[in-house]
Amino acid sequence: MWGGRFTGGPDAVMREINRSINVDRRLWREDLRGSVAHATMLGDCAIIGAEDAAAILAGLETIRAEWTKTDGPPRDCGAEDIHMAVEARLAELIGPAAGRLHTARSRNDQVATDFKSWVFRVSDDATESLLSLVETLTERANDHAETIMPGFTHLQVAQPVTLAHHLMAYVGMFRRDMRRLDLYMTDVEYLSPLGAAALAGTSFPIDRDATTEHLVFTGPMLNSLDAVSDRDFALDYLSAAAICGLHLSRLAEEIVLWASQPFGFVRLPDAWSTGSSIMPQKRNPDAAELVRAKSAHLLAAFQNLGVVIKGLPLAYSKDLQEDKRIVFEAADTLELMLAAMTGMVRDLVFVPERMRAVAASGYSTATDLADALVRDAGVPFREAHHITGRVVRAAEERGVELNGLDPATLAAIDPRIRPEMLMDIDQSVASRTSFGGTAPVRVREAIAAARGSAEGVGDDDQAQPPTGAEA
Amino acid sequence: MWGGRFTGGPDAVMREINRSINVDRRLWREDLRGSVAHATMLGDCAIIGAEDAAAILAGLETIRAEWTKTDGPPRDCGAEDIHMAVEARLAELIGPAAGRLHTARSRNDQVATDFKSWVFRVSDDATESLLSLVETLTERANDHAETIMPGFTHLQVAQPVTLAHHLMAYVGMFRRDMRRLDLYMTDVEYLSPLGAAALAGTSFPIDRDATTEHLVFTGPMLNSLDAVSDRDFALDYLSAAAICGLHLSRLAEEIVLWASQPFGFVRLPDAWSTGSSIMPQKRNPDAAELVRAKSAHLLAAFQNLGVVIKGLPLAYSKDLQEDKRIVFEAADTLELMLAAMTGMVRDLVFVPERMRAVAASGYSTATDLADALVRDAGVPFREAHHITGRVVRAAEERGVELNGLDPATLAAIDPRIRPEMLMDIDQSVASRTSFGGTAPVRVREAIAAARGSAEGVGDDDQAQPPTGAEA
Amino acid sequence: MWGGRFTGGPDAVMREINRSINVDRRLWREDLRGSVAHATMLGDCAIIGAEDAAAILAGLETIRAEWTKTDGPPRDCGAEDIHMAVEARLAELIGPAAGRLHTARSRNDQVATDFKSWVFRVSDDATESLLSLVETLTERANDHAETIMPGFTHLQVAQPVTLAHHLMAYVGMFRRDMRRLDLYMTDVEYLSPLGAAALAGTSFPIDRDATTEHLVFTGPMLNSLDAVSDRDFALDYLSAAAICGLHLSRLAEEIVLWASQPFGFVRLPDAWSTGSSIMPQKRNPDAAELVRAKSAHLLAAFQNLGVVIKGLPLAYSKDLQEDKRIVFEAADTLELMLAAMTGMVRDLVFVPERMRAVAASGYSTATDLADALVRDAGVPFREAHHITGRVVRAAEERGVELNGLDPATLAAIDPRIRPEMLMDIDQSVASRTSFGGTAPVRVREAIAAARGSAEGVGDDDQAQPPTGAEA
Amino acid sequence: MWGGRFTGGPDAVMREINRSINVDRRLWREDLRGSVAHATMLGDCAIIGAEDAAAILAGLETIRAEWTKTDGPPRDCGAEDIHMAVEARLAELIGPAAGRLHTARSRNDQVATDFKSWVFRVSDDATESLLSLVETLTERANDHAETIMPGFTHLQVAQPVTLAHHLMAYVGMFRRDMRRLDLYMTDVEYLSPLGAAALAGTSFPIDRDATTEHLVFTGPMLNSLDAVSDRDFALDYLSAAAICGLHLSRLAEEIVLWASQPFGFVRLPDAWSTGSSIMPQKRNPDAAELVRAKSAHLLAAFQNLGVVIKGLPLAYSKDLQEDKRIVFEAADTLELMLAAMTGMVRDLVFVPERMRAVAASGYSTATDLADALVRDAGVPFREAHHITGRVVRAAEERGVELNGLDPATLAAIDPRIRPEMLMDIDQSVASRTSFGGTAPVRVREAIAAARGSAEGVGDDDQAQPPTGAEA
Repeated sequence: MWGGRFTGGPDAVMREINRSINVDRRLWREDLRGSVAHATMLGDCAIIGAEDAAAILAGLETIRAEWTKTDGPPRDCGAEDIHMAVEARLAELIGPAAGRLHTARSRNDQVATDFKSWVFRVSDDATESLLSLVETLTERANDHAETIMPGFTHLQVAQPVTLAHHLMAYVGMFRRDMRRLDLYMTDVEYLSPLGAAALAGTSFPIDRDATTEHLVFTGPMLNSLDAVSDRDFALDYLSAAAICGLHLSRLAEEIVLWASQPFGFVRLPDAWSTGSSIMPQKRNPDAAELVRAKSAHLLAAFQNLGVVIKGLPLAYSKDLQEDKRIVFEAADTLELMLAAMTGMVRDLVFVPERMRAVAASGYSTATDLADALVRDAGVPFREAHHITGRVVRAAEERGVELNGLDPATLAAIDPRIRPEMLMDIDQSVASRTSFGGTAPVRVREAIAAARGSAEGVGDDDQAQPPTGAEA
Repeated sequence: MWGGRFTGGPDAVMREINRSINVDRRLWREDLRGSVAHATMLGDCAIIGAEDAAAILAGLETIRAEWTKTDGPPRDCGAEDIHMAVEARLAELIGPAAGRLHTARSRNDQVATDFKSWVFRVSDDATESLLSLVETLTERANDHAETIMPGFTHLQVAQPVTLAHHLMAYVGMFRRDMRRLDLYMTDVEYLSPLGAAALAGTSFPIDRDATTEHLVFTGPMLNSLDAVSDRDFALDYLSAAAICGLHLSRLAEEIVLWASQPFGFVRLPDAWSTGSSIMPQKRNPDAAELVRAKSAHLLAAFQNLGVVIKGLPLAYSKDLQEDKRIVFEAADTLELMLAAMTGMVRDLVFVPERMRAVAASGYSTATDLADALVRDAGVPFREAHHITGRVVRAAEERGVELNGLDPATLAAIDPRIRPEMLMDIDQSVASRTSFGGTAPVRVREAIAAARGSAEGVGDDDQAQPPTGAEA
Repeated sequence: MWGGRFTGGPDAVMREINRSINVDRRLWREDLRGSVAHATMLGDCAIIGAEDAAAILAGLETIRAEWTKTDGPPRDCGAEDIHMAVEARLAELIGPAAGRLHTARSRNDQVATDFKSWVFRVSDDATESLLSLVETLTERANDHAETIMPGFTHLQVAQPVTLAHHLMAYVGMFRRDMRRLDLYMTDVEYLSPLGAAALAGTSFPIDRDATTEHLVFTGPMLNSLDAVSDRDFALDYLSAAAICGLHLSRLAEEIVLWASQPFGFVRLPDAWSTGSSIMPQKRNPDAAELVRAKSAHLLAAFQNLGVVIKGLPLAYSKDLQEDKRIVFEAADTLELMLAAMTGMVRDLVFVPERMRAVAASGYSTATDLADALVRDAGVPFREAHHITGRVVRAAEERGVELNGLDPATLAAIDPRIRPEMLMDIDQSVASRTSFGGTAPVRVREAIAAARGSAEGVGDDDQAQPPTGAEA
Repeated sequence: MWGGRFTGGPDAVMREINRSINVDRRLWREDLRGSVAHATMLGDCAIIGAEDAAAILAGLETIRAEWTKTDGPPRDCGAEDIHMAVEARLAELIGPAAGRLHTARSRNDQVATDFKSWVFRVSDDATESLLSLVETLTERANDHAETIMPGFTHLQVAQPVTLAHHLMAYVGMFRRDMRRLDLYMTDVEYLSPLGAAALAGTSFPIDRDATTEHLVFTGPMLNSLDAVSDRDFALDYLSAAAICGLHLSRLAEEIVLWASQPFGFVRLPDAWSTGSSIMPQKRNPDAAELVRAKSAHLLAAFQNLGVVIKGLPLAYSKDLQEDKRIVFEAADTLELMLAAMTGMVRDLVFVPERMRAVAASGYSTATDLADALVRDAGVPFREAHHITGRVVRAAEERGVELNGLDPATLAAIDPRIRPEMLMDIDQSVASRTSFGGTAPVRVREAIAAARGSAEGVGDDDQAQPPTGAEA
């Protein structure tokens, strides 16, 4: 390919370390589309002749048809990378005119364009997968607006909440993930590198607006050096993926906990369980564990690409070739994590009675007593907190729950305590009607809002439930 | 503070690991402001009495005045964290009424609110510092629109470019950084956690819209569990900081290279150099090296917080206390990096004659010959590339630059080569007039556009120079 | 300090980014000791005069005495780094002779020597702290050699084990950590950089064996360029710290789980619990959560230093100044984690009856039935596994444990099942007598071996209990 | 496989996320060898019958023979993992007796044993590759013991050194890498997990010493819970690989720098260069850039596995399945990096005259003047440093090197300066005879020592050249 100046061929190890076709063959659709855009523009601008342009476009269409069957070039095509695979096949098909396709273009702007297009595509894929997960969570929440479970902080029973409220917390996270992917891709990064050529632009009278329009971008990048050396779009995608992975890891951790015998909050169906090669009774939450584990991969991917880029002088350096391996693997991982989580959420069998039992333990309504002392007896909160602490200690010493303490004991602790101040968990949950709170009335509003906005992703006006504390 | 239930005090090591006041004292302004918003709302909603509210607000104002002098609470205040420091001082000042401030609030939503406000603030600070850097780069570029330097790929001389074009590539990067910070903070994250209470909301009739409006947020977060356990905003800030750090590391690397004797492209003034304890002649680019090195800190910070969050069940866990140490250190580091880079860029002494000499070496105009063969002799680019490669080899064997080859030699390689096809570097640079290209006419437009948009950050319409290749 | 060549002073920002005294003041003991070794050698080799050497040594001793009171130089000493602080104070004390101390030495070899000595010291500290933790775990194990708890895989009840066995698993991990620290520091890295000077060695007739012997090293480093640019010792320490942190994070996670109401395996005493600002009943395992979280810091520290070093050309670059901040913070973090974990392990209140109850759930002895079918009825294991799986399903459908199934049901599943094949958890545990297994007889041997080797750390012959299955 | 208890099959996504055969098929040799060891022991201990044992061993040998041809099981074998692939094929070959192989064994101890053996193997491979690199560097050094190049600090010319000395600095690094791999694998980790069964040991009278002896380990692990959940050995390998990667990245960075036109210290032969698709003159150091970039992969791999392990409760969790993907990819990457670096070092064409020219620039002998003032005129070093600084400034102002200053100018700066104190670079290099210094006499000793120890890796007595400054 660059034979003019070279006399010797590459060392076998050089060939191996340099070859990227096994990785970047996945860019074949993007590379063909980019070449179509470029060739069309070259023809329209009379940089190449109309006949050559037509021949190139026909050849590219033939390749597209051929490779659609095999999802890319043949495994043994021998090319160093996908760009050379396209050019070599084109030369076979149309002869020397193929050599005109690379006019006013370099692999540097070509690969940046291909890769950026690809990242946009998987970003869209992730958004769609997130939407499925959000819908699945919302539907499961809708069935459990009154199901009470313990809310934990520090993994200690804190206050009773509804299962729906808990599931909708994840809807909040995953909607942020969708928003983040959307913003990155549209507002920060949606500019085309094509036309930057090797690094300095070109003297051919190209029309970058034309190729931009042909492809998925909203405009051309402003600086050719930046265009060929920038990989921010990949970092942005990886950071969004990593954060999404963290959200998934939290839900996965909860599924592992909930499925554990001491919790017993959920039962995993056979479809999402595995057994043991030695212990016949086992029913393991492998998929949840793997989702949790793979979040580490996404974090490492961001790190990996960041470290590759650190300290690289302008413009393109070969180090950047690592970008595709990193992002391709991360995108595959994220998709698999999202699919597995959506399936698990859909099929989880909740055990409400066990959730309810734990929610009623651990003095989970102690805060309600403190709040009642504030509200009904005018006690400052700090004092009410202290009084309630003593009530809890008394209950603990007697081995009973709060409502197991007799009125005399309560009065001895503080005469302002009245037995009706001791709520049960249903009362407690129903009382938390502040906006965003766990009361069923609030959670139903949140579910309705989420459903209403499901078709119009990013339309936050619909997503926002009414605020206020009218209940 | 939570004495009611507890009988024994904490172990000394427990006290040490648990104490956060040395770190979170930096939140004192945000904590006071959040408390003012909360107390005002509690009074307006008649959750606490008007007199109590007034006393609390007066006390908070007194604290604000006191701590402004010392930039936070006294070092020996003995409090576990900043929230307790405020509450303790308030109790000293106004007595038991202080105990009413924490009504319908938890440290969980309080710290999330404080910290988020702080992150917004340093995000704004970073945007301002970036603006200074962008302006400095643009002004230096403006002085060097015709200064020619070698453009490198793979750190090999590739094609001549202008120094202005090179500097403006960084303007592109840093403008993306500004845009990224802006988007994160406004579109993804600008919702208030305050009012989520411990995790489940509250039964007090609070008005979350009121506190939201009092503070810097655009609305309340939708789910109380999410509100107290979410740290996406910190991750978003850290990812933006890490990417910005990578851009800084690239420029820092270039300064180190350029200042090295073999390059000799810049001279560092004494203000940005250090010497050696042993070698009297040394003039080291320490600041550039440190900027490069500190980019690793920012990458590690994102990683660090991500790993903390991985696999945490809902809602709040104490693990999240690590968030502030990580973000505070990262924010300090980023500010210092930006300040140092802005100073270096401002004061760098460029050595244009050395840049020009290197730009003319390495057969940097070979592409121009290939392009000329395409344009003027109708040779397909691939063939033109091959012919030019042979020309380069011939020049290399003779130890001359391209224009040192005599016409006969050129003709022997390919009769279509004409001597006037061999450009000098000025012609080469001037010819690259494609949009985003390095021709001075294009770069001047880019500089003008950047200047025009400097006051209106984020106003991309102004930032975009006209496209097209009319020059 | 390097005034000869410089005319202007540093920019204020330059001063700030370059100054390291606030970090490296912690090296003051090492810097003084290194200077004593160097000055002694200079005198002995007659590179400086005997009087000068004596004056320098007396001055260094005075500084040592002064700074012992303040644990380092005065906060406002104004020096750029600790090396300059020593030299400046020495000049005040003894005049121009102080200027002879730096003969045949550079800050490059000086700081590498100081820092390496410091890392050896904290490595020893960590080993001692690990020893305390190992002893504490072993003593707690010794009290619980017969306490039965559920062994988990995938957080599903797997097989009953003893609490002692579980605790001794961590002893295994922490003993590896001790071994790792020991090996790194002695076998890989115990060579002195002192005498490498700036990068190339020196023409003064120094005696590197003498300084090596004076300090803690076993020999001089072999190559001066390597000596000043090597930070492997810091990476080795950080990798050992990171792996130790992972072990601590696993135990911390278990404490958090065990203290959670659904588990209820342990009760945290007040000394290791915190409460809530809003929920009066809370007793949170903050220290365990913080240990878990801080493991992320140690991982990030290794990463951070690695990224700093990546791609640095030889020899010393200022980037390396980041090393101390990273390692100092990591060492402080590790010490605090170890101290907190040792305290928690010492004070944890186990709840054996709850552990026992969960150990008996989840069909935890199913493997024993399968094994019995193999052993007593000659069934191939795979078939026995399958038969037992059907027994578990039958029990599950009837809502009983295995021994709740009547003989007829068992016989209907497979006639080879005999009721006595159904073990209880005590029998199950007692039966696992393979070397390293959970049977009390084996665990007692392991405890005895660990106790026997406690004084002789690294003496693996003592640590190894007898193998074999004689019980 | 675990059909007894399960009624439904796995979801398609579950199957996809859970399946590991495409990754762990690389363990086939280790899995077969482990099974041979286990089956032999089961037979010898009469846990299974002699005939069954013989049948199993014959079957395993058949599989070994079959799979040697295809380097593992057929791609379409349909098994979930390599262990099941072996067991399924064994059942086809020998029928139900195959079901006896898994007696007293679990996939948990099985996979830990296989994987640990595999890591030991690639660790040995890496040691061998490192030895080749060390030998290649030493041979190149041997040819350049007198070749002078500039030694840099902060990438500023510091002092002249020999090329041999520079290359031998890397020998020091890579020898530490070899030592580190050796120590990890032998002293920390060389114990066998086999026999730990699922997590608790087994009631079958197995002989762990026998399987240990059969395999590559020096003893059985002491605790069964630790045995199945420990992945320290993989972390140790990855940390050694990451540190080795950093060393490679530094040398790669230098090759990129040296090959750049402004340096011009080396010329890459065609075998290690690539061209450009657009710029006909380019000769890019792609392999060096890729080695530099791939060091980020190794750092990320350590991080990735560490994050997977963080916070995992005992004993085995499915998260650990990620270990193999991470380590396999890292091992492949490291081998490729080492091979490419060895080839590049072997084939690099040094340009001594350019190195020498730069070594003589930048006032690189200023330290020698300062040292001479100390040695010959009794000036304290600090003062000598200051005087020399003024000399450099004078030379710089006049645009000459040090020896271009006339005696009068020198005397005006300080009368103690004598012209013969101004060394040339040959004198400077020759004078640095301290142990580990750059003087040819010292470097030749270091080369001889390295050669002498090449066959006896780890034999440090041979590796250590004689210390002392007798030259």
